[in-house]
Amino acid sequence: MELNQIYAPIHDDLLKLEECIRSVSQVDFPWLTQLLSHSLGTGGKRIRPALTLLSGKFYDYRLESLLHMATAIELLHTATLIHDDAIDKSDTRRGRPTIYKLWGVDPAVLLGDYLFAKAGVEAADTQSVRAFRLFSQTLMIISSGELNQAKNAFNINQDREVYIQRIYGKTASLFCLSTESGGVLSLAPESSIQILKNYGYNLGLAFQIIDDILDFIGTEEELGKPAGSDLKQGTLTLPAMLLNERYPQDNPVKRLFENREKVENIPLAIEQIRNSPIVDESYKIARDYVNIACHLLHELPDNASRKVLMELADFVVTRKN
Amino acid sequence: MELNQIYAPIHDDLLKLEECIRSVSQVDFPWLTQLLSHSLGTGGKRIRPALTLLSGKFYDYRLESLLHMATAIELLHTATLIHDDAIDKSDTRRGRPTIYKLWGVDPAVLLGDYLFAKAGVEAADTQSVRAFRLFSQTLMIISSGELNQAKNAFNINQDREVYIQRIYGKTASLFCLSTESGGVLSLAPESSIQILKNYGYNLGLAFQIIDDILDFIGTEEELGKPAGSDLKQGTLTLPAMLLNERYPQDNPVKRLFENREKVENIPLAIEQIRNSPIVDESYKIARDYVNIACHLLHELPDNASRKVLMELADFVVTRKN
Repeated sequence: MELNQIYAPIHDDLLKLEECIRSVSQVDFPWLTQLLSHSLGTGGKRIRPALTLLSGKFYDYRLESLLHMATAIELLHTATLIHDDAIDKSDTRRGRPTIYKLWGVDPAVLLGDYLFAKAGVEAADTQSVRAFRLFSQTLMIISSGELNQAKNAFNINQDREVYIQRIYGKTASLFCLSTESGGVLSLAPESSIQILKNYGYNLGLAFQIIDDILDFIGTEEELGKPAGSDLKQGTLTLPAMLLNERYPQDNPVKRLFENREKVENIPLAIEQIRNSPIVDESYKIARDYVNIACHLLHELPDNASRKVLMELADFVVTRKN
Repeated sequence: MELNQIYAPIHDDLLKLEECIRSVSQVDFPWLTQLLSHSLGTGGKRIRPALTLLSGKFYDYRLESLLHMATAIELLHTATLIHDDAIDKSDTRRGRPTIYKLWGVDPAVLLGDYLFAKAGVEAADTQSVRAFRLFSQTLMIISSGELNQAKNAFNINQDREVYIQRIYGKTASLFCLSTESGGVLSLAPESSIQILKNYGYNLGLAFQIIDDILDFIGTEEELGKPAGSDLKQGTLTLPAMLLNERYPQDNPVKRLFENREKVENIPLAIEQIRNSPIVDESYKIARDYVNIACHLLHELPDNASRKVLMELADFVVTRKN
């Protein structure tokens, strides 16, 4: 199922979201407008803000505050990507040159800061202390997770628990914020808020595992960036971890992590993982998380939004980019 | 008058503030603890958080929420300095090596992000939507101001209005937040909140003008970094602007801005400014702002805190670092 089909029931509200995001670029400083337009108009999947709107549909759907939160979440996500690209020295994202590539590290740092701040203003405009606090806490989790990832670059001795913790910080924490805040802002009962948060957690883990698989099996055209980017950064993702578990004595990931100059091991690792059951095994792990996510949804009222959240979960594990 | 004398009436509450700031470093990730301790334990003047506490003394002094806000403001300030140092490639601050110097750009970016986020959590803990909205807005002003400064580096054609706008973004905006939030959190009447904000604005402008003067007349020991740093970055500050107004045909600042490689013009500009009435003229402009700030205070209730705010204003223009 295509994303635009899945989104059909919230099509009109997603148009309003696009308008909110577009208005962020309308500032009285032409260069900043240019930087913002470049960053925000890249046709991302908008999964996180869609999750906020959908999660707000079970109780009191307060569109205005949900739109503020959804905008805050998309801006926060964009800001973290801009900082990540500057740190990873990534030239392309979604098939387009990054802010880092076009303007350098310094504007990337400051633009990210600006977007964090603008996101904070949007989160404040929900008028909810709890939503704003969750928003700030999530950025703490994301940035300390990134510091942790930087510290563990090219460290082969990481187990699956460390991996799950890492992808929680990197991705699932923001999915949790998206769904939990939707519950909070629609005045859901606490038990439903926790179900939504837990759905977001499991969906987010699956989403990142798929990202990590695609980094091995996707084409540059599908990914919008070269394959093998994670290995290049020394980030040990699930497929690489499974390869290392399978051949602990010697394998291209181990050789690369022992000497990061030996980049010829990157295509070797890609090749070996593609031609092994590791891809299927990784998909199975992602699907297990998605199944938990969907199972949780049965505890929520049965409505159109629940169906969309089910379909989104399926989309997350079948997507190609 | 020394700062610790001025602070005497709020000595106990400043100790509590130090405890709040110290607890920020207590996290379950040793490297992050190390980075945070290095950044937060540098014995800054704590003027901004002190302003928040003092501004909260005119009406309902709610210490707990004021301490959260004061901590938020000090963390926000620290985060911006860490990002600035990474952008400016500054090796030292307050006489100590910067995060950038010790660990590089990437940890500096991520640590700054973490501190923005932690500051946001503290701002949320005031439970005041208005306070954390102001907090986020201030970070927007600061980061867009920094982008503006980056865009105008080595541009000699900037007038005083542009300069004032720039130092508002860089410094006075955070002073405004410090004093305004103190008013907001102590439930001051709106007129008093506006007076406090306006005091912060004028004090902040004076503070930055003095910083800009000291960058020409201070010693490396006093400044904790080499003199002439602003010129090196291509930042046109008030004394350099006055020199250029005085000798529009030719002067070392103009020569440097025409060709940033000609760094021999930096000591020449310092020398020429030190031996001219420009320093006195710049001090006079700073003093004018401080006088406005103090004049505004007369509209507030006469109490011990008002006296401290007067003394702080005097300190700001007489300090040597």
